[in-house]
Amino acid sequence: MERRLHLGLFLIGTGSHISGWRMPGAVDSFEDLPAILDIAREAERALFDLIFVGDNLNADPGAHPSYCSRLEPLTMLSAVATATSRIGLGATASTTYGDPWTLARAFASLDHISGGRAAWNSVTTANPQAAANFGMVHPDHARRYEMSGEFIEAVRKLWDAWAPGALIRDTASGRYFDAAKIAPIDHEGAFFRVKGPLNISRSPQGRPVILQAGGSEAGQDLAARHADVVFTVTQDKDEARAFYAGLKARLPAHGRGPGDLVVLPGVMPVVAETERQARNKLAALQGFVDEATALGMLSERFNQDMSRFDLDGPIPDLGRNEAYHAFASAMLGKARRENMTLRDLYNLVAAARGHWVLCGSADFVADTLEDWFRSKAADGFNVMPPWFMEGFTDFTRLVVPRLQERGLFRKAYEGRTLRENLGLRPA
Amino acid sequence: MERRLHLGLFLIGTGSHISGWRMPGAVDSFEDLPAILDIAREAERALFDLIFVGDNLNADPGAHPSYCSRLEPLTMLSAVATATSRIGLGATASTTYGDPWTLARAFASLDHISGGRAAWNSVTTANPQAAANFGMVHPDHARRYEMSGEFIEAVRKLWDAWAPGALIRDTASGRYFDAAKIAPIDHEGAFFRVKGPLNISRSPQGRPVILQAGGSEAGQDLAARHADVVFTVTQDKDEARAFYAGLKARLPAHGRGPGDLVVLPGVMPVVAETERQARNKLAALQGFVDEATALGMLSERFNQDMSRFDLDGPIPDLGRNEAYHAFASAMLGKARRENMTLRDLYNLVAAARGHWVLCGSADFVADTLEDWFRSKAADGFNVMPPWFMEGFTDFTRLVVPRLQERGLFRKAYEGRTLRENLGLRPA
Repeated sequence: MERRLHLGLFLIGTGSHISGWRMPGAVDSFEDLPAILDIAREAERALFDLIFVGDNLNADPGAHPSYCSRLEPLTMLSAVATATSRIGLGATASTTYGDPWTLARAFASLDHISGGRAAWNSVTTANPQAAANFGMVHPDHARRYEMSGEFIEAVRKLWDAWAPGALIRDTASGRYFDAAKIAPIDHEGAFFRVKGPLNISRSPQGRPVILQAGGSEAGQDLAARHADVVFTVTQDKDEARAFYAGLKARLPAHGRGPGDLVVLPGVMPVVAETERQARNKLAALQGFVDEATALGMLSERFNQDMSRFDLDGPIPDLGRNEAYHAFASAMLGKARRENMTLRDLYNLVAAARGHWVLCGSADFVADTLEDWFRSKAADGFNVMPPWFMEGFTDFTRLVVPRLQERGLFRKAYEGRTLRENLGLRPA
Repeated sequence: MERRLHLGLFLIGTGSHISGWRMPGAVDSFEDLPAILDIAREAERALFDLIFVGDNLNADPGAHPSYCSRLEPLTMLSAVATATSRIGLGATASTTYGDPWTLARAFASLDHISGGRAAWNSVTTANPQAAANFGMVHPDHARRYEMSGEFIEAVRKLWDAWAPGALIRDTASGRYFDAAKIAPIDHEGAFFRVKGPLNISRSPQGRPVILQAGGSEAGQDLAARHADVVFTVTQDKDEARAFYAGLKARLPAHGRGPGDLVVLPGVMPVVAETERQARNKLAALQGFVDEATALGMLSERFNQDMSRFDLDGPIPDLGRNEAYHAFASAMLGKARRENMTLRDLYNLVAAARGHWVLCGSADFVADTLEDWFRSKAADGFNVMPPWFMEGFTDFTRLVVPRLQERGLFRKAYEGRTLRENLGLRPA
């Protein structure tokens, strides 16, 4: 089957650039439902596969400011569901701070509400500050991934516990269920005991789509077993190609083929008709960064106080730090390869928290995305607009039509469900 | 201040009558969002104060069938929020199977999404079958209420942790927050440790409205401390008056007055222009009850197998059973007072799970509700339609106008938030 390019919209805070909310006319709140509905409608007009809502489980006003006051993703996307009809709705939820029954139920509910458009971005919650909101000690990386594997298995069993056709609802006989098609799961593992079944019938997609973003060895293993979509952090095409090939090569061991997993690197596009205009936009964005906010965010990313280092010195030795996630590793790799100063690193973090910043003319951006797609560095992209709306409409109005003209991107939704639009097998 | 009558719509399954889904043209699914949106719009047209969604945390296809496949309340009501603009949105959520941070966050999110219309029906989850979905042992009644008191306190602290005005969002200076107005709660109790704050700012109502339904001594104590609305189970006006007076008398000890707590008995109205028509509707409903389903539901209510008793014999001695809740006690009291057989009891349960069934002409129903309101047996009613839509529109089209003509019920919403429409003090 021909590969098709897929596009996700990453929705977090007021956009992915730390200071995007200061741009003229920008959306300045991640609690503003009407603004969020406008963004979702624009993404659907542009035929994006899905919206993908990031999350955290703690408030740290010292870090990226607009990330600390936000709507909860499942309630947000249930509201978005009624204002849209075709775009996928991906919510982040943690396997460390939550339970399989509640989570499986909520995503099945979103899948029913949206007519088969729900996706779960399964995360293990890297930030240790979350633990204190749940009276827990933050499990280490290895343990979080062990928990996560078992958690996802239990969720998948719960989604499958109602067979198709379990609901009869025959008014004449009074039979509501076929009880033989509803079974407990009796899951008993190292971390979770879940009897099941859910109190909601099999959802339109059978199983909501599973998204995953961990780039570590354990994260890739989990993705190969369970993920339908992987959101990656990368700064470099060759690195991305190697990651893509490596991840797809893990699939056959789990009875899966390359078409069963869609790899979407994150990219922050800063785009305009000409390169000069695009550079000016990026300069305007960077001009709004203040040192305290950027250092706060850098400290959050590296889980230590970064203000004690010389901003114009080399990248300090940060020791081995368990809380690092793939973001931090990717950034450090790039920074060391390119002999950056700490200030360069902080500019990188401020721009897109370590994601790939792609700045240039519409033709250049379309060329680059096409090249990554054709080179098998990506099956598409998770687009991270620096701010809304202009930072997003620049992409939908300038880049999407170019991708369509080249025959890379759809001109109409192929299916009704997210699974269909992603070209995935029915679950 | 003059007392005003308030109306809630209790939404559970396909309606409160166990066999309502078999009525001609009835809604036959509690997973059908378009049907739920129609119901919500009808309730808003009729100026109801709120919709109140019941819940459970297990599936028991042997019990009330349409209760076992349902949307999750918070996601459902987030979708309803975008299709309505004034009606309150109350979701049931448990203090036994959940955590304060997640719950406080989700309700604050619904409050933002709905512009100040969120309410939390705080329950302790009576059904012991829920425990197995969470790998837990079901705590006994006393312990559940101790947990619940602490849980609600932690939630209220979390809702208050962001002071008004904490969000600044000054694009010129780059100040997003006033950090001095955001504080951890550092809750350390017998059951929960929650650092806080939430990652969502103070919601439009300040505190979402708290609903409560426990009729036990511990439940009434909790209600007197925390509830804004109490949903009661009653079969008898004198019993209701005594309960009402007793509950209001508990308020001053907590610095609260009688206007701070709205008491809404549940009532299943079966109403038509004439009494004969109404009786025919009830007979049609009862004619759809089958024995296995009704016995299953009775067994669920009393937490024991009721099929071993003679249906036409007297009510058996059921022993003291911890799992009884106020519903079961109210039903047993009525059944024993009226020398019912087990079959009479099961008909009572089948009709409205033990709630008050009020069957008659529109004038009779309006007279009775007025009498209860004026006698201080109620501040209004939680209306439990036996089925949808006709079982509900009979009430909105025949009874609501009569209550309005008598000056008892609003002709337009008084406020923007649920708290305002309920006549409660700002939080």
